[in-house]
Amino acid sequence: MGGISRLFVVSRGEIAVRTIRAAQEMGITAIAAYSDADEDSLAVRLADESVNVGGAHAKKSYLNADALLAAAAQVDADAVHPGYGFLSENAAFARRVADAGLVWIGPDADTIEKMGDKARAIETAKAAGVPVVPGSDGLVADADAGVAAAETIGYPVLIKASAGGGGRGIRIARDPEELRSGIVAAQQEAEAAFGDGGVYLERFIARARHIEVQVLGDGVDAIHLFERDCSLQRRRQKIWEEAPAAVLDPAVREAICASAVDLARSVGYRGAGTVEYLYDADTHEFFFIEMNTRIQVEHPITEEICGVDLIAAMIRVCRGESLPWRQEDIRPRGHAIEVRINAEDPARGFLPAPGEITTLTWPLGPGVRVDSMAYAGYGIPPFYDSLIGKLIVWGEDRERALARLRRALHEIEIDAPATTLPFFGTLLEQDAIVANDVHTTWIEEWMEGQD
Amino acid sequence: MGGISRLFVVSRGEIAVRTIRAAQEMGITAIAAYSDADEDSLAVRLADESVNVGGAHAKKSYLNADALLAAAAQVDADAVHPGYGFLSENAAFARRVADAGLVWIGPDADTIEKMGDKARAIETAKAAGVPVVPGSDGLVADADAGVAAAETIGYPVLIKASAGGGGRGIRIARDPEELRSGIVAAQQEAEAAFGDGGVYLERFIARARHIEVQVLGDGVDAIHLFERDCSLQRRRQKIWEEAPAAVLDPAVREAICASAVDLARSVGYRGAGTVEYLYDADTHEFFFIEMNTRIQVEHPITEEICGVDLIAAMIRVCRGESLPWRQEDIRPRGHAIEVRINAEDPARGFLPAPGEITTLTWPLGPGVRVDSMAYAGYGIPPFYDSLIGKLIVWGEDRERALARLRRALHEIEIDAPATTLPFFGTLLEQDAIVANDVHTTWIEEWMEGQD
Repeated sequence: MGGISRLFVVSRGEIAVRTIRAAQEMGITAIAAYSDADEDSLAVRLADESVNVGGAHAKKSYLNADALLAAAAQVDADAVHPGYGFLSENAAFARRVADAGLVWIGPDADTIEKMGDKARAIETAKAAGVPVVPGSDGLVADADAGVAAAETIGYPVLIKASAGGGGRGIRIARDPEELRSGIVAAQQEAEAAFGDGGVYLERFIARARHIEVQVLGDGVDAIHLFERDCSLQRRRQKIWEEAPAAVLDPAVREAICASAVDLARSVGYRGAGTVEYLYDADTHEFFFIEMNTRIQVEHPITEEICGVDLIAAMIRVCRGESLPWRQEDIRPRGHAIEVRINAEDPARGFLPAPGEITTLTWPLGPGVRVDSMAYAGYGIPPFYDSLIGKLIVWGEDRERALARLRRALHEIEIDAPATTLPFFGTLLEQDAIVANDVHTTWIEEWMEGQD
Repeated sequence: MGGISRLFVVSRGEIAVRTIRAAQEMGITAIAAYSDADEDSLAVRLADESVNVGGAHAKKSYLNADALLAAAAQVDADAVHPGYGFLSENAAFARRVADAGLVWIGPDADTIEKMGDKARAIETAKAAGVPVVPGSDGLVADADAGVAAAETIGYPVLIKASAGGGGRGIRIARDPEELRSGIVAAQQEAEAAFGDGGVYLERFIARARHIEVQVLGDGVDAIHLFERDCSLQRRRQKIWEEAPAAVLDPAVREAICASAVDLARSVGYRGAGTVEYLYDADTHEFFFIEMNTRIQVEHPITEEICGVDLIAAMIRVCRGESLPWRQEDIRPRGHAIEVRINAEDPARGFLPAPGEITTLTWPLGPGVRVDSMAYAGYGIPPFYDSLIGKLIVWGEDRERALARLRRALHEIEIDAPATTLPFFGTLLEQDAIVANDVHTTWIEEWMEGQD
């Protein structure tokens, strides 16, 4: 541990820019890693120093641990900030960084491993007393065993293929009869599709909301920085996030935040992390789904309501300081909303739209924050994800945050092949969004209704 | 009173832009008044509607009450927001606006008059129990009367010509002997210079700080939104403001804020106002100097620490709502700094530098706010004051706000004839500023030392 004077930023895009700003404000030299495609990036422009780490394709640069470690040595870095994506949750890389004598700005490799394996993460959560989605204890042997398990799980249940993922191999059963036939069919399908017929059951939560709790640990103690509601998703990708989750009543908020702290404490968590839950707005139950052991794209809305700098805090705890705040110091104020500006064409099925940004004017004034790597003249490369920036607004309450979002969107002028900005203008006109009556598949259901 | 649906914004520049944004967020149609020189202003671009109110020279437009009232009728406005400067503290104009059946976004004309007359304002403050600068009760007849008065005032005292102003006709006396000769000389000088030999005495406060308290009233009750420290001035013009005033200890802060509320309550104040004080950091005494019955240039730093929208609040109380917050709702957080970006050339004695802004990139990211009328391609007209924008930063504490200011200044790219931005970079390197050991003439003294 010890001091950090030269921070190697091995992410790209807006989170690299965000990290560079935090380092510079702390008096730390920020060194940007960049690929051949990112030579002209804003991160490179703003960084104190920068170093090429390989080819445009991420495998050759941002995912290339050898190249990154060699570059870290070359630039004489004493710490590595991974941002999100790429190697940020790669335990092997975290271990190599530490073994090279550098400070890893994140939890140690063992914690990343423990949380990165979904089954181990769920066991860890259970052991910490955090509620998980009710389900069969492992695979169900056959239809009878499934029906027996469903009696405690409660209907409707999901039948999930053990080898599936990303929504594949999932069926829903609303009663024992559907379950019996479903298990048989699912086993056959899974055998055919994955060569592994194992299936398990999980409670189906209709109209679930995605709620997540921001935690910060110093390896000894942990606190939470309240929660975010990230229910507005398109194909499981968050596109609009809010803090706090206005749908929670105070008792549920307290319970869900406390459970996240319990989990973080139980693993001696160090750094910033996010504990993700499904929330059933009908029953007020919440269920752990996973923990992200890195900074999250949507961290700014937490910063805005809590009045903190999470990137600076990560650096502080990872260089060996104890938690910068006591739990009671964290007093959220107002309401914040983030929308993700992607270089995608909403009119063409959200097709990625790389290319040059010829003109760009961001909104200014009170309660508006922009975290972005875009600038006029910037060429969005086709090699990476399509996020080019985030518009974050803060208001005294949700209604005023929505009004400010509307105002800010109206002020943006951008000439680029296409962005998702017009889509947010449309979303702002939807009653369900104004009334905050949405769930994780609301956008898809609404878009289908639009066709 | 009643509802406001069409707000006429009769200011210009950044405060017009600020006001338009607030109105739009409230769902109010914002109508910009503009002069011939401001046809291409950002205010006109952002406003829902706009109307030409006369020639480039302010006397023909922004100071032309007849033209403004005619335009207000023409655009069917139901309220007028005067911003700061121009007619914002003109009681006659406020009265005409009200007489025309429009809502004046500010205190009523009587209050403006009462506070606009310095002698009446001081009497009003005294009556409300607010401390004023100790001085002779009116003019001193001769040297003997002066020495007698100085015994209660305390040395050093200032000998001020009644007909003087703006720093003219002022002498300092450190003991009775200096006072005797000073009064005689000052009376002779004043007689020669102003044709009026009247002089009076006032306590001289060495190394005074300028502290001001933001108040908000609804005509019945009033609250404060804590204080600002505006001690960094150049030729009595504020150029750098901070909130809170870190120099105050909690008891003094409470007392100075309470005294401002007492004053506002005593006149049934409605709208946003600022009560200005001189603060003697040696004795911890504060003395009322004046009250500004309008929004202040530096209001954003209060907004940032308090989490409020003062322009929206002004509109709310002036359309007849009661105070939007209780005093205990106002809980400041962190530290905010504003620097004023003037189109002036620091290298040439701060000579105004109008002309075109050819390129412009504002800083982004956490804790940075820009309120400005500038844009790439904007031609700064030579007819008005030189303020083109304000950079406002917020940090968890003063040290971090300073670091963020440094970072943000570094990110700004502006090609314009000249601005004061480089000057702030220099100020940030001064130990006295980092240590917050400054007073209202510090900048001039420091600049003299630089020569």
